[in-house]
Amino acid sequence: MTALMSEAGAPPAEEAKQALFNKLAARYGERFSRSEALRTQHANTLTWLKVQVPDAVLFAETTEEVSEALAACADARVPVIPFGAGSSLEGHLNAPFGGLSLDLSRMNGIGSVHESDLDCVVEAGVTRKQLNDYLRDAGLFFPVDPGADASLGGMAATRASGTNAVRYGTMRDAVLGLTAVLADGRIVKTGGRAKKSSAGYDLTRLLVGSEGTLGVITELTLKLFGIPETILAGVSTFKTLEGACNATIAALQMGLPLARIELLDEVQVRACNAYSKLSVPESPTLFVEFHGTEAGAREQVETFSEIAQAEGGGALEWAARPEDRSRLWQARHDAYWATKDLRPGADLIATDVCVPISALADCVIETKQDIDSLDLVAPIVGHVGDGNFHVMPMIDTESADERDRARLFLDRLIERALRFEGTCTGEHGVGQGKIGYLVAEHGEGVDVMVAIKKALDPLNILNPGKIFALDV
Amino acid sequence: MTALMSEAGAPPAEEAKQALFNKLAARYGERFSRSEALRTQHANTLTWLKVQVPDAVLFAETTEEVSEALAACADARVPVIPFGAGSSLEGHLNAPFGGLSLDLSRMNGIGSVHESDLDCVVEAGVTRKQLNDYLRDAGLFFPVDPGADASLGGMAATRASGTNAVRYGTMRDAVLGLTAVLADGRIVKTGGRAKKSSAGYDLTRLLVGSEGTLGVITELTLKLFGIPETILAGVSTFKTLEGACNATIAALQMGLPLARIELLDEVQVRACNAYSKLSVPESPTLFVEFHGTEAGAREQVETFSEIAQAEGGGALEWAARPEDRSRLWQARHDAYWATKDLRPGADLIATDVCVPISALADCVIETKQDIDSLDLVAPIVGHVGDGNFHVMPMIDTESADERDRARLFLDRLIERALRFEGTCTGEHGVGQGKIGYLVAEHGEGVDVMVAIKKALDPLNILNPGKIFALDV
Repeated sequence: MTALMSEAGAPPAEEAKQALFNKLAARYGERFSRSEALRTQHANTLTWLKVQVPDAVLFAETTEEVSEALAACADARVPVIPFGAGSSLEGHLNAPFGGLSLDLSRMNGIGSVHESDLDCVVEAGVTRKQLNDYLRDAGLFFPVDPGADASLGGMAATRASGTNAVRYGTMRDAVLGLTAVLADGRIVKTGGRAKKSSAGYDLTRLLVGSEGTLGVITELTLKLFGIPETILAGVSTFKTLEGACNATIAALQMGLPLARIELLDEVQVRACNAYSKLSVPESPTLFVEFHGTEAGAREQVETFSEIAQAEGGGALEWAARPEDRSRLWQARHDAYWATKDLRPGADLIATDVCVPISALADCVIETKQDIDSLDLVAPIVGHVGDGNFHVMPMIDTESADERDRARLFLDRLIERALRFEGTCTGEHGVGQGKIGYLVAEHGEGVDVMVAIKKALDPLNILNPGKIFALDV
Repeated sequence: MTALMSEAGAPPAEEAKQALFNKLAARYGERFSRSEALRTQHANTLTWLKVQVPDAVLFAETTEEVSEALAACADARVPVIPFGAGSSLEGHLNAPFGGLSLDLSRMNGIGSVHESDLDCVVEAGVTRKQLNDYLRDAGLFFPVDPGADASLGGMAATRASGTNAVRYGTMRDAVLGLTAVLADGRIVKTGGRAKKSSAGYDLTRLLVGSEGTLGVITELTLKLFGIPETILAGVSTFKTLEGACNATIAALQMGLPLARIELLDEVQVRACNAYSKLSVPESPTLFVEFHGTEAGAREQVETFSEIAQAEGGGALEWAARPEDRSRLWQARHDAYWATKDLRPGADLIATDVCVPISALADCVIETKQDIDSLDLVAPIVGHVGDGNFHVMPMIDTESADERDRARLFLDRLIERALRFEGTCTGEHGVGQGKIGYLVAEHGEGVDVMVAIKKALDPLNILNPGKIFALDV
């Protein structure tokens, strides 16, 4: 981060900052804190990037408070880093220039649920599990599921997706509208409750994925779905990665409405077997799930079984009971922790890329060869229906050699994904970790992004040092 | 448009403009024209707004030519109005400040079709019918269907949707990436071929729906779908509008994957019967279509029939043969022309709004009452699965009284849609016709849009006078 720090120019005037913090302390009492433990907890924890703690933490409870805080921070030229559940993976929560971590976790009210319209309005701090618990009795659910119990505001800010995206889309699709506070404290409402609109620029989609650099999302209108009548899930083991990828392509091409289809390589299966007490054969494996009517879901199962077998897949093992299904998907979601157990004490680098699905098998195979050639331990797990996969190298960050090999691995991974016409991140975002890769991917497009950033946040106080390396 | 003209300030220096046109004429020969017929044909024709012809027309054939033209126009401060197929409805093609109509219809090359990835790359001038003819043999189709055979670049620019959107989404969802030329001639590529990405701001979605005010779209990467094994279509007649709306809500809530569901009021049914030689009973009617496997589609039909009957719908009349199905949907798509026949010689105002689906019945009923109270002829047809409906008042634009009544009708229609938490346009866009309504809908959000516009097109040469009333 030295490069970033040197670009920062002079730090925000210490005096103005202290005056601001005194003002916030007086105004918010114990909701404002400078305790070291709290500040550290609010910096980045889930990556191998260096932790950079903010100067202070404020727990906001309303959009108006966020507006007031932002206006005050803008006056004092103090950076603001929005914080939801702390589960982001690319250093989004670090404070390279210091500043205020604005914690929205107490903004966890669930407003109106409109059952007929299949939408609801929530505050940004509500987590996806809180929302789904709340919706269950109404027979509805919110499908975007990145694994972690992330806050919905954070999920929108990073354009999260996960296992259900192949059927239900990502946060790009799930957010109908939102309330955001701009860098100067202005409150804007974007989108609305209509299912579609051609009324002007799509500010909703601009804010989704902007990682807190254009505005602080405080409220969201989300698209919901009815809980399907029948859910069937199962596991299919393949001889080869190509077989698993080709089965996925064939199923998508015939329009089979796969609800989830997850690829685990043999290393990841071994880790999950050990961590989650499963006994899946240790070879490339697809975890699949189908949603539909009783008859519809059964028909999908049969069709998929035929496709899988034609591509060298074994018979599908079905988890008929809900508790078996939950156990299966819990194991998939625990891949992160299972991987950690592969090399206790090591640091896990969670990274992801996404490529056109036809390139997935080649890209994964080349990646595995590179893992071997660099002598890394790095399981692979992927949202194969989207061409999106995660690699999780486990390294000792104290070792310069291991750090170098990991960096080389990441460089080559992104270069490979871009060569296959893919993207440097399918769902984790840019944060601090992928600033250089974003330029490699979008070139001139990054200048356009920067022009927008400068137009909406001329002082660069909103989550500076993320997405771009700009002067503060 | 007087208000807009007066805001324009001084017209572009006549001398610079003439020099530019001389240069373009020398460079492009017969592909550059100042003929009055051609210029008139390139101005807005499908609305009741005053026609404002451009000064000249250029047929571009490559992205590089568009870049060159835009750089030259920027130098001379001459506005550029992108033109595709000329089927937009809110005055998007008018030239209130004169300038160059940049016709992209010759950029109609279809590049790579990636069958495994279900995507393709096309030039902006390709129309949706051209693309679907091309794709048919591969068993693929592009679903967005606004009725008119619009250009795909124009459809992206106006965020078009149409009858299939309830199942397959709008242009917002259909465009994976695009190439656009910015106001200064820079060429940017946004998005890519990966199915999803978290790599920076969503410039693709920013350009989709920007109506040529932020960039000229020259190439698109589009999402495709496999042609379904079975397509079943039919007609169900209801006693009341509420019944038809409630049947739609019930079907959506249970997750029935409706491919199309269109509501026609009794006035529109009468018009379509007369124009398309149908014999549908003249009461509120749903045209529906289901896509799936043979068994899946049949199951959907049965489920929908039960739902419709529970809401007072008549037995579903099925069009089993493809030619009957085509005839049915052709009749739906000819609603515009059928309406024109209701009052020969009159001008048709094509407008649309979109509301949360739970509000649709109330909004349509209030709208019909207002049509009666204003003594207008105005059939209603709607993409009911999205809460989006069209009203088509037929007026004599020579009559000041009729114009006044139409204006009052539109004002109240939008006020009503916003009161129901809807939007002033579901799919036609803002253009010139809805500039004031956009402010009513988005308030402070419009300031944000303007800040982006100014950052990316500081000279306001890209389609000026659309979406916003800005000084040139």
